[in-house]
Amino acid sequence: MEISENNLIKKLKKFGKTSDNVLRGIGDDGAVVTMSGGQYVLVQDAMVEHVHFEFSFLDPYYVGKKAIAVNVSDILAMGALPLYFLVTIGVPARMSSPDIERLYKGMKDASRALNIILLGGDTVGADSFFIDVSMVGKLVTKKYLGRDKAQEGDLIAVTGYLGEAAYGLHLLQKGITETGSGKCLKRFMDPRSPYTLWKELIKHDITVAMMDISDGLIIDLERMMAESKKTARLDLENIPVPAILRKKGMEKLALTGGEDYQLLFTFPQKKLPQVKRLQREGHKISVIGKVAKGKGVKVFKNGKEILLTEKGYQHFNEEPHE
Amino acid sequence: MEISENNLIKKLKKFGKTSDNVLRGIGDDGAVVTMSGGQYVLVQDAMVEHVHFEFSFLDPYYVGKKAIAVNVSDILAMGALPLYFLVTIGVPARMSSPDIERLYKGMKDASRALNIILLGGDTVGADSFFIDVSMVGKLVTKKYLGRDKAQEGDLIAVTGYLGEAAYGLHLLQKGITETGSGKCLKRFMDPRSPYTLWKELIKHDITVAMMDISDGLIIDLERMMAESKKTARLDLENIPVPAILRKKGMEKLALTGGEDYQLLFTFPQKKLPQVKRLQREGHKISVIGKVAKGKGVKVFKNGKEILLTEKGYQHFNEEPHE
Repeated sequence: MEISENNLIKKLKKFGKTSDNVLRGIGDDGAVVTMSGGQYVLVQDAMVEHVHFEFSFLDPYYVGKKAIAVNVSDILAMGALPLYFLVTIGVPARMSSPDIERLYKGMKDASRALNIILLGGDTVGADSFFIDVSMVGKLVTKKYLGRDKAQEGDLIAVTGYLGEAAYGLHLLQKGITETGSGKCLKRFMDPRSPYTLWKELIKHDITVAMMDISDGLIIDLERMMAESKKTARLDLENIPVPAILRKKGMEKLALTGGEDYQLLFTFPQKKLPQVKRLQREGHKISVIGKVAKGKGVKVFKNGKEILLTEKGYQHFNEEPHE
Repeated sequence: MEISENNLIKKLKKFGKTSDNVLRGIGDDGAVVTMSGGQYVLVQDAMVEHVHFEFSFLDPYYVGKKAIAVNVSDILAMGALPLYFLVTIGVPARMSSPDIERLYKGMKDASRALNIILLGGDTVGADSFFIDVSMVGKLVTKKYLGRDKAQEGDLIAVTGYLGEAAYGLHLLQKGITETGSGKCLKRFMDPRSPYTLWKELIKHDITVAMMDISDGLIIDLERMMAESKKTARLDLENIPVPAILRKKGMEKLALTGGEDYQLLFTFPQKKLPQVKRLQREGHKISVIGKVAKGKGVKVFKNGKEILLTEKGYQHFNEEPHE
């Protein structure tokens, strides 16, 4: 590691924009913040070289951005706005200062975009690079948006297109460039939560059950159904499959591909007019199925149930995201 | 990694005692807690195999305990009581389920002792093992106890003995067993903050400037003086050197050895009677010097300044603890 303590602390200090609520930022045993009374969401999510990515196809700048983005995604999915984060970075000796600079720049750009303040953390030596971010957000909904709150009769919806990130990763791993794949590459390298749409969903009180899609639609929906003790009946024809996946015959990635960080949520039928209005206003929302009594996820194609052989996507050798 | 997702989540769930303030614990995108208005302390600190320890001399049980203890130490040093933590564990494929069980047991024992609640985290594959804990505490002092608050004329004190952990590590690394070294081994393997004494210091409002000693007395005191823009004048004869270090001629470890997790604090002269009373009540506090104008740390032996060649201790290839 070429970076000395003083450099690092200086870098981290200048990194931060801060706020009146931060009484003590980087530089002490811990950070001190004033919090108003209320409900807060806490998350922690890591990215590890050779497990989640390789530097050969993901520049440190995007590693930094993505480490923030995946935690933001979890915070939003609970109905909260991100406020603060801490970060531990495990740095192998071979990693250069410019690489670390770009990593920081990525974290800075991603956190500043949402006014999230860096409070501190740790930098340690490591054989393989890792970055582990913890984040605190404040609930802006009356009650948290939980995986355990899907109700019988609710409709199931997702934002955006699914499988883009998985196809992007596929291309990066193969080292293939392909016209028309830019959106998929971007979705893997630089995923962003559909923040504007999220605000609309919150504002119009559309949903009480939300999660982000990090490991793939089917596997994540199964988790939601398990927590809610319900079954999901999905209509295959309504899944938002990107055109490029259809063209390539890789539609299945829309069901099984991870890391899109789109939002999955349920809503009562009476909210359908508001959802349709949001769609008309240009927001990409797909109503893909319905919650019923039972358990697990069932997929229907033109009204007929089909069986899925591969359920989802997990990072190699890794537990799924919380 | 032999542990499957479901096992892990189950393990983590049963791990937790919880409280009415935890509206949603493990099992969702994030945890949701009710917090009362006030000041909170946030810390994050990691331990990495081959950097901070080897499993050959530190059992997973103690790795788990210590990962909690080092974060508790930072929280207490700010004047706060720990409430919640999240943890990311990087698990190499070679690690066995019983090892992971013991790691969890260590975390559980350490966190339950202080009623700290596990809220979640992440488990990821990794080449080398790492554990990264983030922790939230609530300030119980009117203002945080900062490294930046040492005042000219204040006395400087430390709790316990210094250099014990470094000597314990030395023995473990060499594979030596030695009579009378039990306390030093324990201090390295199972460090505990002087919690009872800490409560007394808080209760009697002794100090406004505190930090924990994680990297060694001199290097940590230099950090405090840098933040406070003062100099420290240390009296070598008052440093609490363990008898075993004197016997071995390794007194210097008391100045430079890390990982004792004792507390370093300053206090105004007018508080000296209370400090003396705590000493009479059996608390190990050593008044080791005085804060003056200037910068850095000066060490005096029988009134004469001596020069230190080695200033402190840093983990190999690593940034110091925040």
